[in-house]
Amino acid sequence: MSRFWSSIVKDLKPYIPGEQPKITDLIKLNTNENPYSPSPNVLAVLRIEAADTLRLYPDPNAEELKTAIAEHFQLETHQVFVGNGSDEVLAHVFQGLLKHRYPILFPDITYSFYPVYCRLYGIDYEEVPLTGSFEIETECYACPNGGIVFPNPNAPTGRLLPLKHIGDLLNNNKESVVVIDEAYIDFGGETAVQLINKFPNLLVIQTFSKSRSLAGLRVGFAVGHPDLIEALERVKNSFNSYPLDRVAIKAAVAAIKDQVYFEETRKKIIRTRETLVDNLQELGFEVIPSKANFVLTHYKFCDAKEISQRLREEGIIVRHFSQARIEQFLRITVGTDNECASLVKSLAGIVQSLVESDALEENSLSR
Amino acid sequence: MSRFWSSIVKDLKPYIPGEQPKITDLIKLNTNENPYSPSPNVLAVLRIEAADTLRLYPDPNAEELKTAIAEHFQLETHQVFVGNGSDEVLAHVFQGLLKHRYPILFPDITYSFYPVYCRLYGIDYEEVPLTGSFEIETECYACPNGGIVFPNPNAPTGRLLPLKHIGDLLNNNKESVVVIDEAYIDFGGETAVQLINKFPNLLVIQTFSKSRSLAGLRVGFAVGHPDLIEALERVKNSFNSYPLDRVAIKAAVAAIKDQVYFEETRKKIIRTRETLVDNLQELGFEVIPSKANFVLTHYKFCDAKEISQRLREEGIIVRHFSQARIEQFLRITVGTDNECASLVKSLAGIVQSLVESDALEENSLSR
Repeated sequence: MSRFWSSIVKDLKPYIPGEQPKITDLIKLNTNENPYSPSPNVLAVLRIEAADTLRLYPDPNAEELKTAIAEHFQLETHQVFVGNGSDEVLAHVFQGLLKHRYPILFPDITYSFYPVYCRLYGIDYEEVPLTGSFEIETECYACPNGGIVFPNPNAPTGRLLPLKHIGDLLNNNKESVVVIDEAYIDFGGETAVQLINKFPNLLVIQTFSKSRSLAGLRVGFAVGHPDLIEALERVKNSFNSYPLDRVAIKAAVAAIKDQVYFEETRKKIIRTRETLVDNLQELGFEVIPSKANFVLTHYKFCDAKEISQRLREEGIIVRHFSQARIEQFLRITVGTDNECASLVKSLAGIVQSLVESDALEENSLSR
Repeated sequence: MSRFWSSIVKDLKPYIPGEQPKITDLIKLNTNENPYSPSPNVLAVLRIEAADTLRLYPDPNAEELKTAIAEHFQLETHQVFVGNGSDEVLAHVFQGLLKHRYPILFPDITYSFYPVYCRLYGIDYEEVPLTGSFEIETECYACPNGGIVFPNPNAPTGRLLPLKHIGDLLNNNKESVVVIDEAYIDFGGETAVQLINKFPNLLVIQTFSKSRSLAGLRVGFAVGHPDLIEALERVKNSFNSYPLDRVAIKAAVAAIKDQVYFEETRKKIIRTRETLVDNLQELGFEVIPSKANFVLTHYKFCDAKEISQRLREEGIIVRHFSQARIEQFLRITVGTDNECASLVKSLAGIVQSLVESDALEENSLSR
């Protein structure tokens, strides 16, 4: 701790993102990226934007992108906020909408950035336990609170909260903002965007990083009542006038307009996920029901961290969290069919060898 | 004010960036952009990056860029912090390094984002008056403070504080962080980067938006003692893991490595500035001595806001600030030689016509 630091700095516990390895011949199933390229239209637009005009600032309001998102969801432009990835959008949400008298609520197993934002902005929070099967119980959120936030589908569980339950939660919680972080909604869920005209306290956040294959360009957005959007604009315009660069704005517009490519790739991922789940279950893995582009899975006879290390030795990276309740699980991104087949093949060999070496050890101990 | 807003939101007074007009045939001299294209190497790299790999997250630490910046300044990588434009870097600096017991100090006429950050993070500040000729007097900063921040050259004055005076200021201020915002340093100043190994409380901020022609891509950086950099990394990693996208990282690396193009374009701008200053003075304008890519100028016989409106009617936009002490000045970006010649020609006509109409009016009143 340096005497030059603001006092808040020493207590920060930064979020740790999944590894972005420098070696390129790995099968990378650790950060929920899309295995398919962005739309060819996106790449064409990017090449056009590599031009003299980069010397000029972008539109600070990114009107073109807000309009494209509004049209996509049949909303008004002033119901849309855009940011440098949904993480930046979330940061502004925490600072601008979630600091109140009561603590905010989120699940005990969820996106691990939420408590990090709370420390950054001095926001109290309470973790609400998921059920034994990792489900969100909306009744557990029926108490005075400064806001409610959760991903849907939840991460890293992959479990979807049906839209009807979200409606129930909103009907029972009208005094604070409810933030639904829909990073993974396009892989099998029904968006809550259709509820925002009914509930002025509902904010829905989505990203171009997953279903639009643009993790490398950093574009996220929020939609909700204009009053909520105005709070975010005020914070954003007190932080950084131009969070979205010229290239990212144009690419995101091209991405959201290519609905055909979007449908094709997201459906491929859903199909691959179903096959992956079947194959994992055949190997004896338990798989939490997922509507995301990843699965959370558990093999009761072997240590999860050890499995992940063995996979790494075979050139496959998945994500392991050293966190209570899920430390014996692995979160595996849905890759291409071939990547998932390689994963399943490796897993079969690894668990067999681990089980055999355990058996040998027990055998020698019992002699 | 909505009941859903965090209490801080209602008091925010966002920064208002210069206009980014939608019409393209204007002579745009209002936001200090570079009139020359980014390096051809930058554009070539961008076209290569428009690829499948955009589906993957960027390196959250942007090591490649930090290394290139460190090499450029002969520093170590852990003395470098990068962000989504120098505005984002500044925001993290205010939150992470400038919130202490005493108020921070900055000039009364300076980058108008500083008080905005203070409100966002609840930081007290005091404005230290510039001299009558808009100079920073370092002795005025010799009092207990939570930090000192100013641009060098200052904006919107363009005045440079010589490096020797910065050394004096640092020698007299060792208990708090001194932030020098060098957005415009490459247009005629001497960087304070060479002082960072001597002063552990010195942080120097630069940007790729001005001298590297990359305002459209949003890349800025800070260099200083590793302890200062660590504070910024902690804040950044509690805010957004990936503020720089893949394209911006690669483009900035290519930009900083093309020293030849950089020298060529910045020297052209310096030459054009000198001609512009001469021409303005010939018209009877007072020009504050500038080492930036803009000039602050004043014509005592006409209202500055009116001149700026007349220029706008002729398709030329410059910046006017409705702020005490400079409300009768215009800030004019140094464009190409042709753009500046058009500006001077328009100005000549405008001031002549304004002076004549004033004379007519007085004449008719005196009858």
